[in-house]
Amino acid sequence: MNRVNAVILDRMQSEIPLIPELAGHLIAGGGKRMRPMLTLACARLLDYPGDRHHKLAAAVEFIHTATLLHDDVVDGSDMRRGKTAANLIFGNPAAVLVGDFLFSRAFELMVEDGSLKVLKILSNASAVIAEGEVNQLTAQRQINTSEEKYLDIIGSKTAALFAAACRISAVVAERPEADELALDAYGRNLGIAFQLVDDAIDYVSDGATMGKDAGDDFRDGKVTLPVILAHSRGSEDERKFWHNAMLGHRVSAEDFAYATRLLREHGAIDDTLERARHYGQRAIDALGPFPASGAKDALVEAVEFAIARAY
Amino acid sequence: MNRVNAVILDRMQSEIPLIPELAGHLIAGGGKRMRPMLTLACARLLDYPGDRHHKLAAAVEFIHTATLLHDDVVDGSDMRRGKTAANLIFGNPAAVLVGDFLFSRAFELMVEDGSLKVLKILSNASAVIAEGEVNQLTAQRQINTSEEKYLDIIGSKTAALFAAACRISAVVAERPEADELALDAYGRNLGIAFQLVDDAIDYVSDGATMGKDAGDDFRDGKVTLPVILAHSRGSEDERKFWHNAMLGHRVSAEDFAYATRLLREHGAIDDTLERARHYGQRAIDALGPFPASGAKDALVEAVEFAIARAY
Repeated sequence: MNRVNAVILDRMQSEIPLIPELAGHLIAGGGKRMRPMLTLACARLLDYPGDRHHKLAAAVEFIHTATLLHDDVVDGSDMRRGKTAANLIFGNPAAVLVGDFLFSRAFELMVEDGSLKVLKILSNASAVIAEGEVNQLTAQRQINTSEEKYLDIIGSKTAALFAAACRISAVVAERPEADELALDAYGRNLGIAFQLVDDAIDYVSDGATMGKDAGDDFRDGKVTLPVILAHSRGSEDERKFWHNAMLGHRVSAEDFAYATRLLREHGAIDDTLERARHYGQRAIDALGPFPASGAKDALVEAVEFAIARAY
Repeated sequence: MNRVNAVILDRMQSEIPLIPELAGHLIAGGGKRMRPMLTLACARLLDYPGDRHHKLAAAVEFIHTATLLHDDVVDGSDMRRGKTAANLIFGNPAAVLVGDFLFSRAFELMVEDGSLKVLKILSNASAVIAEGEVNQLTAQRQINTSEEKYLDIIGSKTAALFAAACRISAVVAERPEADELALDAYGRNLGIAFQLVDDAIDYVSDGATMGKDAGDDFRDGKVTLPVILAHSRGSEDERKFWHNAMLGHRVSAEDFAYATRLLREHGAIDDTLERARHYGQRAIDALGPFPASGAKDALVEAVEFAIARAY
């Protein structure tokens, strides 16, 4: 991971000082490096002896960072990774443009690596992420969003990059397609579990532990699974409440307290986490074809870590 | 060009209806298709018999469209190509995300083509464009911006994509590097001329003829060459005026009228256009190595067209 961090720090440089300054605020300032760690762990799982995956893991993190910068502009976020969001410090224009820079840099890194297959996987993932983000935007404030549509959205906006981060290791290790698909499935299911947990946490966290405030999704009218379940299981009056809340008409501290009470009453948080465990288990089972190893244990632990964040 | 347009229309589709809707507003709604036309004209200059350049020309237009969408968010633009800017109709969030989608789609098209050399040229151009945009943002409202720095900025934000659009034709036609470099120089100089003319027009156009309002740069505090020249040639009082104007303190209709009067008095518009003709001539001379042909005439005409827009 030190090698990956070195690539990240080296390649976010630019003659335009604002670029490393803004990128550094987000990249150097914490972040779990979950996605590049997955690329590394999968490479280790396959006993890949080379070092191509360092550059590619950095590319994955750049794509992720670019989407975070743009997400914060889109959502008008206040906090990210426990710090003031970059767009609030440097302004939306700089956040948009530095996101574009990091995105381009990611492709430069992939081109340097030279694998068209990796380029295909990650350019496709990038388009799917953007589609997922637009889809999420379209679904915002729509209380009638179905669980199926919600799963579509998080499958695109989150799980696609997890899947790609894992799959590219099988490509550089020159493994058969079955291994690519197994790692893709592992990453995709882990990504869905990860996002489900994130969406549950948004109703139970405090800013200090999670690096962002509880209730962001509630105030933004993002119809996540906890809300979908509570709405679907609720009384007529409760459904009216959710309808109005998602429209932004019921977003006071009292409204949020009421919302979390409804979520508890209907087991919506518990069942969201239950769904997360389901996808987590599928991720673990996707690793079935690979023999036991320390790397495999680490990938199983990554799933457990993703889910344990909620507790 | 019909083939390119067919690729553009086909590949801006998505299951998420907002994507083709927003992209179509900008792409279908006019635009000169200057950059993809350059790719085609250069391919014709080199007697390239294949059809790979259609997809790549569409990729170039997607990159350009993505930067336009993000620019309009960054600048808070009201108008683009004679229509209400997409961000005003669909909102900044959608404009940012659909830009990301088109950018990813551009890379998917390049990956389908399969040339790592083309991918390298265009991923590098994309990073340089983003750097240029950030540089421009940093220089905004800084009246002491030098002509050198201004040329750096427009060389990155505009000319890099013109250069790449031309150069990739030499790559697909499998021509020697000297031809690549000649077309790169043609495109780069044309791009600089094009932007110089654009920046002059911003002080003399009316919305009806140019598709955007005169004075946008003035009100945004963008220190373009006309301002740099008028400031550098002006009296102490006039310099104070420009200083305050770029800071946004003198942006009334009267202030703008005074500004255009100063520009005329100091020959700042004429000399900006003179600089444009200089780069236009360099573009034409860069075509020296290529024998006379209809395609060469078309490339010379493209330069003349870029400059004639100011008259």
